[in-house]
Amino acid sequence: MVGTMRTDGGRLCNRQWLLASQSREAGKACQLRLAETPIPQPTEGQVLVRHHYLSFDPCLRGHGDGRRGGVAQHTPGSVMAGHTVGEVIASCHRGFEVGDRVFGHGGWQEYSVVDLDAPHALRKVDTARNPSSAYLGVLGMPGVTAWYGLTHICAPESGETIVVSAAGGAVGSVVGQLAKLRGCRVVGFAAGPDECRYVVEDLGLDACVDTTAHPDPRALREALEQLAPDGVDACFENVAGAVLDATLACMNAHGRIALCGAGDGCDGGPAPISHPELLLRSRLRLEGFVASERLLPSALGELSDLVASGLLKYRESVSQGIVSAPEAFVGLFQGGHFGRQLVRLV
Amino acid sequence: MVGTMRTDGGRLCNRQWLLASQSREAGKACQLRLAETPIPQPTEGQVLVRHHYLSFDPCLRGHGDGRRGGVAQHTPGSVMAGHTVGEVIASCHRGFEVGDRVFGHGGWQEYSVVDLDAPHALRKVDTARNPSSAYLGVLGMPGVTAWYGLTHICAPESGETIVVSAAGGAVGSVVGQLAKLRGCRVVGFAAGPDECRYVVEDLGLDACVDTTAHPDPRALREALEQLAPDGVDACFENVAGAVLDATLACMNAHGRIALCGAGDGCDGGPAPISHPELLLRSRLRLEGFVASERLLPSALGELSDLVASGLLKYRESVSQGIVSAPEAFVGLFQGGHFGRQLVRLV
Repeated sequence: MVGTMRTDGGRLCNRQWLLASQSREAGKACQLRLAETPIPQPTEGQVLVRHHYLSFDPCLRGHGDGRRGGVAQHTPGSVMAGHTVGEVIASCHRGFEVGDRVFGHGGWQEYSVVDLDAPHALRKVDTARNPSSAYLGVLGMPGVTAWYGLTHICAPESGETIVVSAAGGAVGSVVGQLAKLRGCRVVGFAAGPDECRYVVEDLGLDACVDTTAHPDPRALREALEQLAPDGVDACFENVAGAVLDATLACMNAHGRIALCGAGDGCDGGPAPISHPELLLRSRLRLEGFVASERLLPSALGELSDLVASGLLKYRESVSQGIVSAPEAFVGLFQGGHFGRQLVRLV
Repeated sequence: MVGTMRTDGGRLCNRQWLLASQSREAGKACQLRLAETPIPQPTEGQVLVRHHYLSFDPCLRGHGDGRRGGVAQHTPGSVMAGHTVGEVIASCHRGFEVGDRVFGHGGWQEYSVVDLDAPHALRKVDTARNPSSAYLGVLGMPGVTAWYGLTHICAPESGETIVVSAAGGAVGSVVGQLAKLRGCRVVGFAAGPDECRYVVEDLGLDACVDTTAHPDPRALREALEQLAPDGVDACFENVAGAVLDATLACMNAHGRIALCGAGDGCDGGPAPISHPELLLRSRLRLEGFVASERLLPSALGELSDLVASGLLKYRESVSQGIVSAPEAFVGLFQGGHFGRQLVRLV
């Protein structure tokens, strides 16, 4: 077990990013402090996990109410919160053995001790079937978010037209592909010609509107109207603002809107719904949701098969080493990242 | 039968308001033309109805898609559309007898011939049990709209807090009273101290926010926060705009919003939802709806008992005679009307 740990001057060491102070500005690296602490040891009912991958969500900053038990609170001095996949390297719990691969809320650090009494503390994952990094993306919260919103809120039927915004993103790309597999016509919104090409050529969506090429709301709506000539039956919304306004104007009666993102990033400025009367006139149902980890087992039934068989594509952008975490995190808000942002810790 | 009809120069006569031309401006009387035509005669499968009361909705102007079969289209030369209650005075249909009291889409005229093959053409009403005018209000579309939105979308449970806007109006007053009967804490929004007093003292709601006394959105929100200390679980929205923004800010997780009205009147300017991120963070479900007459039988099961027993209160504002219809209609958009606006035709 010792062989898998990092040593620093002869001492076993866990590097971790601590929150030095809170700020409302976008993920400033200077607010964080890299600490080196002894690797914690598990006691009865606990396991020690070595993290292989770390992920973070834009929502880390804003959506306090989206967190679940087991996630570290963002108080000064606490370890930054984040999902992790890793390997159990010491166990004092009969349900877990050394070598088990696990998904959890390890945070921005190389090791964590997990108390298995906490709900959703740790979940075993099958890394023989699918790559471990996938459990932080297409088989993790982005995947379950896409799966839940599409299947339970959009509830598409074969032949319907579905719109998804941020269609090349970690969530949107799963939504679009799942909707295609359900026999829908799927139109995406994405920023820039490269993203749009990826959405259509790689993910297989029917069409994609380049939001950067249609700056005013009317042009956006007209572009969508052309690509969705039968109207839009359901929408998976990751962005809101002008994109949602354009979609609402194209929706058929009794359409469904899964509202998964609203605003420019999770704590960005508000992006008003300009014409709520469209919700009324077309008798639309809009549901804001934050997927819960409780849904993971249901979602993974479908998603892991699709990933294993290559039917569900995904992208990752991986930075190396715990030291790179703040820079990778800040990159989330600066655009230009491509696929699910992960940090590899081994 | 002849005795019940108006004669004009010896001829039986039906006075009717025809649409002379269409306009986007609020119900201008000058667009309408009063015509006198012979009373139509029913043929096989039809009945002749003498109208006792006429009602109109603000939505007459805007909500083309809210109409159902049997409602006259608003093309120049056509009779203005409106719901009516009246009496069958000649019948060529085995399902209806002379003397039957009926609800239908008779329009702005004193008589109409109804083809019973059309869906929802005519429905018998029990005017021995409840006043006939009630079938155009609390037992008509306003009532069914309130009943459907409250029971199927707000779905309140005893002990929850419900908010209703335009709480003294034809729809809102039914919503608030039904929610009270279901054991909820009910807070209304209404314009002016008189309306607020009516809502609390006559309708029995727990509290009412005077929208005219809280012009800015923050004051409106703070007023609601004080009156809904446990947060808001469901909202029946007749107005949207600042009132809905204030309510969204006070809503508990998994709250429900029945969107029944949006904008200043049905074709008024848009009233944006300023912070859709609240829908996301509190995981709210918002549903725009237009109640259908198909729901009337279900709704009336509960509503007619309540009206007959005096548990459900309502107000009417009645103008006399077909000639008064345009003025009464324009009054809908000028404020100051009190209760359901009806025109008595007998």
